[in-house]
Amino acid sequence: MTEIAKGLEGVLFTETQLTFINGTEGILTHLGIPIQEWAEKSSFEELSYALLYAKLPTAAELKQFDADLKANRAIPAKLSEAIASFPKDVHPMQALRTAVSYLGLFDPQAEATSEADRYAISVRLIAQFATIIAAIARARQGKEAVAPRDDLNHAGNFLYMLNGQEATPEQARLFDIALILHADHGMNASTFTAIATSSTLSDMYSCMTSAIGALKGPLHGGANEAVMDMLDEIGDPSKAADYINKKLDDKEKIMGVGHRVYKYFDPRSRVLRDYAEHVASKQGKSTYYQILENIEKVVVERIGSKGIYPNVDFYSGTVYSDLGIAKEFFTPIFALARISGWSASVIEYTRNNRLLRPDALYTGATDQHYIDLNDRQ
Amino acid sequence: MTEIAKGLEGVLFTETQLTFINGTEGILTHLGIPIQEWAEKSSFEELSYALLYAKLPTAAELKQFDADLKANRAIPAKLSEAIASFPKDVHPMQALRTAVSYLGLFDPQAEATSEADRYAISVRLIAQFATIIAAIARARQGKEAVAPRDDLNHAGNFLYMLNGQEATPEQARLFDIALILHADHGMNASTFTAIATSSTLSDMYSCMTSAIGALKGPLHGGANEAVMDMLDEIGDPSKAADYINKKLDDKEKIMGVGHRVYKYFDPRSRVLRDYAEHVASKQGKSTYYQILENIEKVVVERIGSKGIYPNVDFYSGTVYSDLGIAKEFFTPIFALARISGWSASVIEYTRNNRLLRPDALYTGATDQHYIDLNDRQ
Repeated sequence: MTEIAKGLEGVLFTETQLTFINGTEGILTHLGIPIQEWAEKSSFEELSYALLYAKLPTAAELKQFDADLKANRAIPAKLSEAIASFPKDVHPMQALRTAVSYLGLFDPQAEATSEADRYAISVRLIAQFATIIAAIARARQGKEAVAPRDDLNHAGNFLYMLNGQEATPEQARLFDIALILHADHGMNASTFTAIATSSTLSDMYSCMTSAIGALKGPLHGGANEAVMDMLDEIGDPSKAADYINKKLDDKEKIMGVGHRVYKYFDPRSRVLRDYAEHVASKQGKSTYYQILENIEKVVVERIGSKGIYPNVDFYSGTVYSDLGIAKEFFTPIFALARISGWSASVIEYTRNNRLLRPDALYTGATDQHYIDLNDRQ
Repeated sequence: MTEIAKGLEGVLFTETQLTFINGTEGILTHLGIPIQEWAEKSSFEELSYALLYAKLPTAAELKQFDADLKANRAIPAKLSEAIASFPKDVHPMQALRTAVSYLGLFDPQAEATSEADRYAISVRLIAQFATIIAAIARARQGKEAVAPRDDLNHAGNFLYMLNGQEATPEQARLFDIALILHADHGMNASTFTAIATSSTLSDMYSCMTSAIGALKGPLHGGANEAVMDMLDEIGDPSKAADYINKKLDDKEKIMGVGHRVYKYFDPRSRVLRDYAEHVASKQGKSTYYQILENIEKVVVERIGSKGIYPNVDFYSGTVYSDLGIAKEFFTPIFALARISGWSASVIEYTRNNRLLRPDALYTGATDQHYIDLNDRQ
């Protein structure tokens, strides 16, 4: 028993009925339905319901769920004031982590941990994450927060609160698709951290605060921001191939390619590429898109055989960028989507909860004794 | 590969040189030195250094570390104001989680994640946890926060900030011992959650916020509070045996006995019992102590053979109670001690970091397709 499961890779610790990933074939399903169908036919609201309740809603259930989300978009005035008072230069994920923790102080149900309580809080948090993130973005620009509207869907209302003006239907639908693609992804590090927190039977605000903290790390949520940095560094499509070839020759990491789970195309990246191609066919190819195309070609040719392919972060940054979203908000937007997966996974795990307490192999000194301070070297 | 490691029990995921536990024999060591020696001879400051740097400090190193802690006790005025404005009735752990996250907004180093940065932030947080927790406790009572003093040690200064008056040397030493006993305990759920967060290379404030959230759960940090509730329910030492016998007959859980790791006396409980006996020999036995004695007798006789013995939470509540600390602050005080173990474990893990991403066994539906809303049952 001295084998160490580094990163807990391949270790099964629970069962799930929500999300299935076959990384070798590039398959991702929620409730057994391929992600491509969710992206094409569903909405973020519907997928959130499906993840939370592990079933497709009826028309009446979806209508009620949507009404509940809309009714819970507002945030307490004290939270709005707090967000407006945050230092302007803090990382938006720090602001989000603090705001969500702070929100818990004003929820009389915050300490309640029955399944019904967890559902009610999850619905509120899914709705309020949008309002909080938009308020943080505007505060950073020195602008007043925009109050939510209840005649827009989740995606459209977020873009409205962010920009202070309504998005086009195409923009709102594109953003809805991006939220769908990021809503859940099995046992990723932030979902796992949320579950680790909940495994002590802690409350939902603690779970979500933990998840935000984990998502914030550059190995998890920060990758699409790093892809954009790379595109800006390359600058011109004609320079992409040389840039990537040099990176590969130098055995350096390329942002947005390769994934712990996927050894083939990440199916989410295919959905986003199809969208980008669709836009390009109408409006001509953007510089970013041309650079991405050229990078992908080199990557697939040179290292595709090693199971390294573009992942979801490869295209998502340009999509957000097309929507006028600033780079530093890519990770908060990841949280805006993943809150559904976090909540659903915590609720599912709690049904058969077991405290998470793995072991570490002790390799330190043994049979030592305390040495008086004056006798030490 | 469909074996599920529930609770990740027995799964090794990393190496450590900090803490060793042999639950069968009731052994706990830090750097190979038994917990009893730390409790008897050391201080919370020294053990914190030892955990962080994996060595005993020289006299000069300890002096510097102590000076660094003292120099960092103050918290930003905006945080003090925020704490004073928190709703009075929130769970102190919610307040602590929010305050620590909020503190990060005012630390220009908050986003920095080199080992040197992590050390610097850890020292500040160890010092500032005391100030924050005392401020939260006083705010709940409608009292002004008490500014830290730099002529008292960590334990004595905390009690001073909490009560607004200096503790006796005996009280300060007892509290110091309690902090020592709780400073680290291997891969417990809150430490593991801190590591899960840090495994994405997230920042220290995120890691500590996550750990607070996990510790907050009743399966982890809330147990000594539950022991006190039980003692209050029993009320009289003469009723203890009947109460416990009935619980055992009804196969109900008894708070403060049994532990996932220990199958013998938790050595930390022995240190606290010895202290309680020492006090009792001088001042006579308190009611709480007599009840605990009577419970322990029944427990050891009836279920000791099953590996169920009093754990650290069994005696710690009465110690805190003797020090005049309110029940709802037992868990924040756990955090006050465990911040050292959290910080040290995160720093150690980060040296050989690997993203934590275990798997869940998918047992849901397969080969499903999206059904149009109108066609659903």
